[in-house]
Amino acid sequence: MRPIEEHLARCLAAVEVLPAAELALSDALDCVLAEDVATGIPLPVFDNSAMDGYAVTTADVGAATPDRPVTLPVAADVPAGSRQELRLAPGTAVRIMTGAPLPAGTGAVVPVEWTDGGTDTVRIRQAPGAGQYVRSAGEDARPGQVLLRGGTRLSPRHVALLAAIGRDRARVRPRPRVAVLSTGSELVRPGHPLGPGQVYDANGPGLAAAATELGAVVHDAGIVPDDPDGVLSVLAAQLSRADLLITSGGVSAGAYDVVKEVLSGLGTVRFDKVAMQPGMPQGFGTIGPDATPIFTLPGNPVSAMVSFELFVRPVLRTLWGLPEPHRPSVTAETAVGWASPARKRQFVRARLERRAGGPPLVRPVGGQGSHLVADLAEASCLAIVPEEVTQVQPGDSLHCLLLDRVR
Amino acid sequence: MRPIEEHLARCLAAVEVLPAAELALSDALDCVLAEDVATGIPLPVFDNSAMDGYAVTTADVGAATPDRPVTLPVAADVPAGSRQELRLAPGTAVRIMTGAPLPAGTGAVVPVEWTDGGTDTVRIRQAPGAGQYVRSAGEDARPGQVLLRGGTRLSPRHVALLAAIGRDRARVRPRPRVAVLSTGSELVRPGHPLGPGQVYDANGPGLAAAATELGAVVHDAGIVPDDPDGVLSVLAAQLSRADLLITSGGVSAGAYDVVKEVLSGLGTVRFDKVAMQPGMPQGFGTIGPDATPIFTLPGNPVSAMVSFELFVRPVLRTLWGLPEPHRPSVTAETAVGWASPARKRQFVRARLERRAGGPPLVRPVGGQGSHLVADLAEASCLAIVPEEVTQVQPGDSLHCLLLDRVR
Repeated sequence: MRPIEEHLARCLAAVEVLPAAELALSDALDCVLAEDVATGIPLPVFDNSAMDGYAVTTADVGAATPDRPVTLPVAADVPAGSRQELRLAPGTAVRIMTGAPLPAGTGAVVPVEWTDGGTDTVRIRQAPGAGQYVRSAGEDARPGQVLLRGGTRLSPRHVALLAAIGRDRARVRPRPRVAVLSTGSELVRPGHPLGPGQVYDANGPGLAAAATELGAVVHDAGIVPDDPDGVLSVLAAQLSRADLLITSGGVSAGAYDVVKEVLSGLGTVRFDKVAMQPGMPQGFGTIGPDATPIFTLPGNPVSAMVSFELFVRPVLRTLWGLPEPHRPSVTAETAVGWASPARKRQFVRARLERRAGGPPLVRPVGGQGSHLVADLAEASCLAIVPEEVTQVQPGDSLHCLLLDRVR
Repeated sequence: MRPIEEHLARCLAAVEVLPAAELALSDALDCVLAEDVATGIPLPVFDNSAMDGYAVTTADVGAATPDRPVTLPVAADVPAGSRQELRLAPGTAVRIMTGAPLPAGTGAVVPVEWTDGGTDTVRIRQAPGAGQYVRSAGEDARPGQVLLRGGTRLSPRHVALLAAIGRDRARVRPRPRVAVLSTGSELVRPGHPLGPGQVYDANGPGLAAAATELGAVVHDAGIVPDDPDGVLSVLAAQLSRADLLITSGGVSAGAYDVVKEVLSGLGTVRFDKVAMQPGMPQGFGTIGPDATPIFTLPGNPVSAMVSFELFVRPVLRTLWGLPEPHRPSVTAETAVGWASPARKRQFVRARLERRAGGPPLVRPVGGQGSHLVADLAEASCLAIVPEEVTQVQPGDSLHCLLLDRVR
């Protein structure tokens, strides 16, 4: 059996971050920037008013007080978006709106609240300081200044900044395209009637959802029966559409394991027993002209989901250029004991209970058979039992992978 | 000025969780279930094999050891998906694959690894216990059993379970549809040239991204100049398409504030000064035949984003049926001091520095003008200064809202 780390290292060594692409801002959210972004314009773009009010020279209004207001003629009216290029004449005021371009020669802006709001003349009751309520061109950013570094994962505030400097596109790592294929003659698509010996395909929808949750663009390639030509032709059709292929089923030691049969001769795909429970039979490699990575996951739904967490997730995050391949984990204390197989790392579906003043308590959920998908749904974490432990004791400390996304 | 909590309470009182809808599984991921889901079928659906191997009666193989193997004729071969309805005759074995239906009368499954793998006869070297490697119908879930409760937020493992019981749809709270509209004659869409007095619209893309990050389906309604008829007609067109409208700009005390002008007479929209910095001028109400909620956010990009965090985010989460309206926060110690306005809660763009053995250190980023969008992009949190504090001292403890989504 191969150690988990060795299998994971082989998977990660076969992939690299996807080539950068220019995407529209609305598609670039959550993606990693693949360029340093410098602004071509100053921010603010021009001197403008921070308030609705009046542009004045400081000399004209320096003496204004509530008792001795200063009255000035209003020489012009400047709404936001005005294209007038004005110069403030000494002894006059210009009525101006927030964000509107200041007339040349403006010393300060008097907020409308300090005035009578006049439109022909204005009575000013309070003197602004020099430069008060003036937003100067370039005070936020100068032309040529790098505002975002390559490697930044774009949040809404980064999108707002890119828009503010006029960018409608950004060079980013695109979302990985993932094709998901379920194999097995016993499988029926949910929503259709079951015949004798048939079961619903839980892995296709479950793995598609897991890849979607991670940010991938998912093609659901459906179900293919245990027929080598069928499996091959579906995989071939997905090669040009996907950055990663995921199959489930058909990889154990049985006589009808077509995925194993078909892929053993293709590309670099190799089938290994990995020292874990559930999820021992793992296949991974690259196929096709672009050396597209392919995971062949075991068909038991719990094995498939655990394999996704351990191997597919880090590979998907690597393709997308993200750090921190694994889910967050916490250390918890076991509420009960249980047996664990020798020489395999066990991943136990479990729930965490927070406790005041101590580590959380972790308690297994239901049975641990790899077909128990209802029990999996109840779990909130996977408790990890190391390879050398065959008996977990109550009170032991275990690392637990958290299965739910944080807000 | 209205307290923040009072404004937020008024916003929340005007909305309720969206009516439930039947969605395809692939669209239901991340949505909140609006039904208790019971299974109509047992899980497993039928007794089946947990291993590739041989179905036997325990009596026939109980004496098998490596030294004294038991040889049985192989009466049939059952792949997964087989529709044969078999009965195991005493004194015979049936070759069987993982997941395949067990013949009636099976006592246990002998894994292929304990045999010579024969197809005509099989030599069995080890005896399984009674029921070993048998997965019994209904052991994971019985027909009629409720497996998921209303209120569950659907994760990939819940999607897998719904698929396993044959559901291709689920009754959930649908994603809120949000229309985003920027107002202002000075605004230009990113990617286009700027004329005199013009600036790029940062709020449209930024607010659209913020709503998308929260899970909303966003309609970008673009930019409308400061023209009452234009604003009205765009809003009217979005009413039937959106569960929530968000405008930015045109709500201060100025002469060209068309949003305020247009909406003051419509529905329940009210314009308030809220005791916060930035983001004082806030408008909210409901309009149209369906009482669609509308936020009219201030036009300064930082004010708009802070307003989104404080008011729009909780309303969006309420519409979608999610608990925990606000972002996670941490308590941090200030690295420096700064002034804060009296009687307003201040939201300071800042960065957190983790420290061993103590609370993180929080340090403001750049200036605090509400037009400083480059500085906003640098921030990782908003440090919250209470209304009664006018001077923050180094070493003070402040709550900080975390701006980045956790993995």
